[in-house]
Amino acid sequence: METTDATRRISAWVSAFNRAMEARDIPGALALFDEACYWRDLIAFTWNLTTAEGKPAIESMLKATLAETAPNSFKADGNASEQDGVTEGWFTFETGVSRGKGYLRLKGDKCWTLLTSMEELKGFEEKKGRRRVFGAEHGIHRDRKSWLERKQEEESQLGTETQPYVVVIGAGQGGLALGARLKRLGVPTVLLEANARPGDSWRKRYKSLCLHDPVWYDHMPYLPFPDDWPVYSPKDKIADWLEMYAKVMELNVWTSTTCEKATFDEASATWTVEVTRDGRPVTLHPKHLVFATGMSGLPNMPTYPGMERFRGEQHHSSQHKSSETFRGKRAVVIGSNNSAHDICADLWENGADVTMVQRTSTHISTSDSLFRFGTSRLYSEAALERGITTDKADLINASIPYGLMHEFHMPTVKAIREHDAELYRRLEKVGFMLDFGDDGSGLHMKYMRRGSGYYIDVGASELIANGDIKLKSGVDVREITETGVVLSDGSELAADLIVYATGYGSMNGWVARLVSPDMADKVGKVWGLGSDTTKDPGPWEGEPRNMWKPTQQEGLWFHGGNLHQSRHYSQYLSLQLKARMEGIPTPVYGKPPVHHRA
Amino acid sequence: METTDATRRISAWVSAFNRAMEARDIPGALALFDEACYWRDLIAFTWNLTTAEGKPAIESMLKATLAETAPNSFKADGNASEQDGVTEGWFTFETGVSRGKGYLRLKGDKCWTLLTSMEELKGFEEKKGRRRVFGAEHGIHRDRKSWLERKQEEESQLGTETQPYVVVIGAGQGGLALGARLKRLGVPTVLLEANARPGDSWRKRYKSLCLHDPVWYDHMPYLPFPDDWPVYSPKDKIADWLEMYAKVMELNVWTSTTCEKATFDEASATWTVEVTRDGRPVTLHPKHLVFATGMSGLPNMPTYPGMERFRGEQHHSSQHKSSETFRGKRAVVIGSNNSAHDICADLWENGADVTMVQRTSTHISTSDSLFRFGTSRLYSEAALERGITTDKADLINASIPYGLMHEFHMPTVKAIREHDAELYRRLEKVGFMLDFGDDGSGLHMKYMRRGSGYYIDVGASELIANGDIKLKSGVDVREITETGVVLSDGSELAADLIVYATGYGSMNGWVARLVSPDMADKVGKVWGLGSDTTKDPGPWEGEPRNMWKPTQQEGLWFHGGNLHQSRHYSQYLSLQLKARMEGIPTPVYGKPPVHHRA
Repeated sequence: METTDATRRISAWVSAFNRAMEARDIPGALALFDEACYWRDLIAFTWNLTTAEGKPAIESMLKATLAETAPNSFKADGNASEQDGVTEGWFTFETGVSRGKGYLRLKGDKCWTLLTSMEELKGFEEKKGRRRVFGAEHGIHRDRKSWLERKQEEESQLGTETQPYVVVIGAGQGGLALGARLKRLGVPTVLLEANARPGDSWRKRYKSLCLHDPVWYDHMPYLPFPDDWPVYSPKDKIADWLEMYAKVMELNVWTSTTCEKATFDEASATWTVEVTRDGRPVTLHPKHLVFATGMSGLPNMPTYPGMERFRGEQHHSSQHKSSETFRGKRAVVIGSNNSAHDICADLWENGADVTMVQRTSTHISTSDSLFRFGTSRLYSEAALERGITTDKADLINASIPYGLMHEFHMPTVKAIREHDAELYRRLEKVGFMLDFGDDGSGLHMKYMRRGSGYYIDVGASELIANGDIKLKSGVDVREITETGVVLSDGSELAADLIVYATGYGSMNGWVARLVSPDMADKVGKVWGLGSDTTKDPGPWEGEPRNMWKPTQQEGLWFHGGNLHQSRHYSQYLSLQLKARMEGIPTPVYGKPPVHHRA
Repeated sequence: METTDATRRISAWVSAFNRAMEARDIPGALALFDEACYWRDLIAFTWNLTTAEGKPAIESMLKATLAETAPNSFKADGNASEQDGVTEGWFTFETGVSRGKGYLRLKGDKCWTLLTSMEELKGFEEKKGRRRVFGAEHGIHRDRKSWLERKQEEESQLGTETQPYVVVIGAGQGGLALGARLKRLGVPTVLLEANARPGDSWRKRYKSLCLHDPVWYDHMPYLPFPDDWPVYSPKDKIADWLEMYAKVMELNVWTSTTCEKATFDEASATWTVEVTRDGRPVTLHPKHLVFATGMSGLPNMPTYPGMERFRGEQHHSSQHKSSETFRGKRAVVIGSNNSAHDICADLWENGADVTMVQRTSTHISTSDSLFRFGTSRLYSEAALERGITTDKADLINASIPYGLMHEFHMPTVKAIREHDAELYRRLEKVGFMLDFGDDGSGLHMKYMRRGSGYYIDVGASELIANGDIKLKSGVDVREITETGVVLSDGSELAADLIVYATGYGSMNGWVARLVSPDMADKVGKVWGLGSDTTKDPGPWEGEPRNMWKPTQQEGLWFHGGNLHQSRHYSQYLSLQLKARMEGIPTPVYGKPPVHHRA
């Protein structure tokens, strides 16, 4: 294997950094950074998901964490690469209690971006590979219990004779990914799922739904999809996979179970979680409660004048199950983001007369272009052939600090705008209001900043451009009548069905409902970066608020996001929970104050 | 990457062989082989599983197959290795209709062993990796069917409006592995499973059962076990995995379905298969019928005088579900192979008074030693770390011709004998009759030759050595009385339970039962090599009889074996069936005559 200049440069930096870290030499470490520098730490130094931006912030972080972290043994790992003056490469390291991986970008010989990621806790490694359990107990012992008997015993006692350490509300992809990691770490966990079967939250959606992200981005932890899995999985196929996943990962999923109420006792640092399981009340007493109820919170149902008198059917987009009964009927969809487009297309496909009401501008990117110009760089067959496995892709992805991320996305957006110029022209011609983000950074930044404001086009834009889906744009709803929707321009749309594709609130809405409004206010808004762009007010936080990391409420956590985030960030959340269960000190650095309540 | 002498040697041979093959130059090809030489072909040249042993046999094979096969493009692949004068390495090649892989052993610069394996049919490649289906149909189309609707439609029509091309009897690991491969190849298939759920044939066994082979040997095709799977999987865990596998692979498994009768119409080359599905009769008309009913055939139930008068419970080992009801009872187990040992241990564990009746000698190898000295070379974490993936291990394993295989196993047996000398001494001290195979080649050869005569020790041998399980050896059963078993030495064993662990017949017993005794005789005995050793009479066949390859009956196939064999050989069986479905000529070379009927 040829040692390149890039590899030598990374290796030299990592060696120098190791000397500084092992000597607890903060000035020495700072001297290795460029003036413009970012250090993103995923719980290895800070027991938090944090990005220190600039030398003063890095200095503060190291002063607070270096002694207790006891970092050591930084070693460059594998081949580095160089492009446009930026050298990138991998390293491994240890702390007093953990082993980690890192990814480094140098400008010249100074660090521009640094990622440090905890991979495992020493002494609590996953029992995989050479550490796997034996399974059979060779040698014969009277009255030993079989695997099945032990499993059944555990299941029957959990929640009565024994208490879970963690309760997760929601067994969608987020809850299941976290559950699988906690299972491997030996953290007793119960997942509460309102539906009868894992995957039902997918099964119950409208029938043409497919994932909008490609397969390479969507793997669950530990059990990747087979190599013939479709690029964009149909919803029922994903549902079956999740149901199977829960089973073979041996997760304690309580199905047909709703969480009614949760209260936290500060003195004992224990939750009381009241649930209804198959119609019967059960009370659980975990130390930690994780909301994995979907990245979006409760549906935002608007309150337009006159809604109560509408004689047709009206519901929030989250309640839209099937369009088949609306053949030949008139449907009005209020909203113009992902759900609005998907539901308009589903209604049109089923022979309804559909009008979309676009109140504000929307960012459109076709699924194909997003993949071609964006995602495929790290998540694709081509990436795999270049040696970028899912684990590596996740870390490279995570190594881009949020403070720079918009700059990484702008060239992608520019390429997509050129490639799809004709589609954009045709959409504008029918009056569709387009945007590309406040700063032209496109879809992913809108997702991270506000979780809304875009449509990943899988076909509905063509229907709008050619008029199959009718469009009323630049208007709002004035009132609902007995027979339809009156718009702000005075026009009226007759309707048999009104769908309010008006989005979702912050996830702490679930806390308000299940715990208390006070606790929801205490932890504050979930999601968003504080970018001071539309629907993401400042101040700048540098990381998504409250996700996968400690909140202002001990024992209260939020988990979720898309399949990629559910997979990758469940690693850090599971390690944080495991460390607490084992009594490993977890001093949290850099927990931000609450700036927004919802 | 350094090019070694070994790599150069393999490369030179493969180049020369390619010139001979592309020129259809049989003498030129033969000149490249050592006098002692073996060419094992897995359907690439012969549409058969065959081993040509020696130059004359290779010459005959090439004369019959070379023109039609049109082999070309042989290329050395990757690094070769050399040890003890034998150089080994990989190559790829093509034929007129397929792409293949091969593995080569040279002595000096001449070929000692050659493997040619068909990997895929040109034009009918699996839709995996870059070829995977798109899944979502981007663009919106009225009245299109969803994945679920299409799946449900296919399921509802298969067997009525549409006919499967293949019917597989049995949905254990063998049937499921084959079903998964046929699914990928687009061959319409129905699997018939008598039990209510896939995996039930495992669930119904005695509760302490675990796999006797380690996890690395046991993967199913396409979906390897997660990396924390136990070394020796408990039966219920495997059962759950198989049930999940059938589901996510979207196999058409008809559960609670028994095959009642099958007849073959020679004129139309079509089967009529009468099944009872959930209590209702259904008639299927496939072109091919695969028996995947377990490598062993129907139970061999002995007929001892007096059996009818026994007042306790008596059953064949295959009927032994649970030992829990025999606490404090006297149990006699007739037989001394795997099932006999497992059931004796299970009975002892449950507090029964157990006696094993050993009629003839048994080969014992501990599971740990078999792994340490044998299997782990190709199937283990260490092998994986050396780059030997499961696919590679399967081909290296297959590259050892059966004619040499006993020689490869003798050193393993020798090492095990030394390592476990104390156990063997103690077993002999209590009268246990040991053997190591007629030629000292041990367990795997007994498995391939006769499928019996051994116990993979997971603990019962200790119970025999220490007297917990009582032993009567060197005797046969004279008669059964009302209260027990009279042995050939005149002694009598009182019994509340008699288990006949007396083995199984050949798989063609299933053909006799479901089709006709005549057809069973026509295809003859299944399994065994013709090694002219105990219970494997000659003449030498060089491959297992009738397994995974054409039989004397058109449209009739046998599939199964252990998990490794089910995984690997399902590849060749599925390609043979696919080729026939697509009308690709499949001239079979070297189909042996039937020497034994059962």
